[in-house]
Amino acid sequence: MAIRILVTGGTFDKEYDMINGKLDFEDTHVPEMLQLGRCTLDIEVRTLMMIDSLEMTDTERATIALNCKMAPEEHIVITHGTDTMPETAAYLAQENINKTIVLTGAMIPYKFGSSDGFFNLGAALAFAQTLPSGVYIAMNGRYYNWDNVRKNKKTGFFETLK
Amino acid sequence: MAIRILVTGGTFDKEYDMINGKLDFEDTHVPEMLQLGRCTLDIEVRTLMMIDSLEMTDTERATIALNCKMAPEEHIVITHGTDTMPETAAYLAQENINKTIVLTGAMIPYKFGSSDGFFNLGAALAFAQTLPSGVYIAMNGRYYNWDNVRKNKKTGFFETLK
Amino acid sequence: MAIRILVTGGTFDKEYDMINGKLDFEDTHVPEMLQLGRCTLDIEVRTLMMIDSLEMTDTERATIALNCKMAPEEHIVITHGTDTMPETAAYLAQENINKTIVLTGAMIPYKFGSSDGFFNLGAALAFAQTLPSGVYIAMNGRYYNWDNVRKNKKTGFFETLK
Amino acid sequence: MAIRILVTGGTFDKEYDMINGKLDFEDTHVPEMLQLGRCTLDIEVRTLMMIDSLEMTDTERATIALNCKMAPEEHIVITHGTDTMPETAAYLAQENINKTIVLTGAMIPYKFGSSDGFFNLGAALAFAQTLPSGVYIAMNGRYYNWDNVRKNKKTGFFETLK
Repeated sequence: MAIRILVTGGTFDKEYDMINGKLDFEDTHVPEMLQLGRCTLDIEVRTLMMIDSLEMTDTERATIALNCKMAPEEHIVITHGTDTMPETAAYLAQENINKTIVLTGAMIPYKFGSSDGFFNLGAALAFAQTLPSGVYIAMNGRYYNWDNVRKNKKTGFFETLK
Repeated sequence: MAIRILVTGGTFDKEYDMINGKLDFEDTHVPEMLQLGRCTLDIEVRTLMMIDSLEMTDTERATIALNCKMAPEEHIVITHGTDTMPETAAYLAQENINKTIVLTGAMIPYKFGSSDGFFNLGAALAFAQTLPSGVYIAMNGRYYNWDNVRKNKKTGFFETLK
Repeated sequence: MAIRILVTGGTFDKEYDMINGKLDFEDTHVPEMLQLGRCTLDIEVRTLMMIDSLEMTDTERATIALNCKMAPEEHIVITHGTDTMPETAAYLAQENINKTIVLTGAMIPYKFGSSDGFFNLGAALAFAQTLPSGVYIAMNGRYYNWDNVRKNKKTGFFETLK
Repeated sequence: MAIRILVTGGTFDKEYDMINGKLDFEDTHVPEMLQLGRCTLDIEVRTLMMIDSLEMTDTERATIALNCKMAPEEHIVITHGTDTMPETAAYLAQENINKTIVLTGAMIPYKFGSSDGFFNLGAALAFAQTLPSGVYIAMNGRYYNWDNVRKNKKTGFFETLK
């Protein structure tokens, strides 16, 4: 099954810049993670942007939506910062794209040795293969429908609204 | 959704014994992995055995089948060595258990820092939530039906028969 | 040989705070590192502060000097941020403490999986055992006398002045 | 200061072979470790053999001794399996080579994510720079003279004889 992964940045891909002592983006780690996971799916990875999800505006969301529509694949995984992941999911849902779209991310950067990102990527790819058309968030081993999810900013866990 | 994880050992859980310089089993790493993955699913973990899958006989397989049947959960993940994973999947399929059963494992031990196991566990849990009743293997980011899978012993990748 | 380790913070001990997405201090990782290094030296670890070395003032430096003097051990290792490590070394040298004092640190936090800190700690402990009384910096596998060292802010490597 | 590192194998450099499920040698990890440690010493790395130290015979020891003598450097670090490290140290001591020779190794392979090897390498390089001519073992954060050391096979720690 062909899957497209759209990379947008987020904690998932953050790195430590040793010269300025800050967290920063360089290249995405998704290809390295797919190799480590020994993934044999037919996957295309496209980096659309490398930003903190707090910087995500409708311009970026329109770019993501466009890429979801134009992709030849019917199954799409989007790596995204956790802070505004539900907002982007809602934006994409309103675009009525007839594909299975799964957003995922991480609370801890992949490069920091104890990240949830690798686990989340495995789950997101599995959900993208098995869920019907729609927009979902895959975090914490679960999937959430776009209209029934929020991030609990105190605990860092995602939860349903109802 | 309630999921039961049955632990049977395999490369997934192997550790390096520094005193004798060999690979060995101690406790399972599954609970630690669920925590690292920040998993909020309702999961029960049961260790049934801690063996190399080359040592797996019908006695062990009957134990696994029994535990699948008796578990209150309808969704089951089994961690298992890769060498005989398809044989155990076939055994379980013949038991006609009306549940979603997903076997997974790893080519590299979780403790060795570059394991596929964490990715596979995320995928297996996702498949266990979304696939219909049946017996499956989750490896390499994909799922395989029990009657259409083999491990390629030369490459270490799983592949379909047809 | 008895060695005292004085912990002051620095990149060495920084962690990723997943709730606010920033780098922060919690407890020191030095005891965990000594255990991982299977260290059998007679070591006392004391946390004096947990700060970025850019926040280090003479108040903090006086505290460090006092602790060097009062310690029953003749061999002292100080973990310290790299940015002002030479300044603290110079301050301690002017105190004329008749002990072997070795400052060390890291360019990448220990917790981030690819840190130089574990290597530096091994080297600093070795230098503390073998160098004569004086104040030194142990970084990059080498030791530097307090009056002949600076950090190259562009490369992140330490270098001699002459 | 110029240092030569002679690589002989040992647990230090063992890797997990995912196809046969055994521990094996490929290339040495010493250059990668020096880079991670951000080491700026003038170091030459030479791989002499890649063996378990239980396979070390006088033929191999003579090769190591020859390389110690012929090296232009006065300071030498040898990576070596722990089981017969004291025997090789004693062999080298009898050769009366007028250099500082430090043997080191690891109880857990470097590649396994929780190895003492990186810490030991930092310490061994520091001891090689500061100790007078002689043959030493650097393990557990300490150095041992060649004629006063044994490995405790039960605990895996090195200890003095008297």
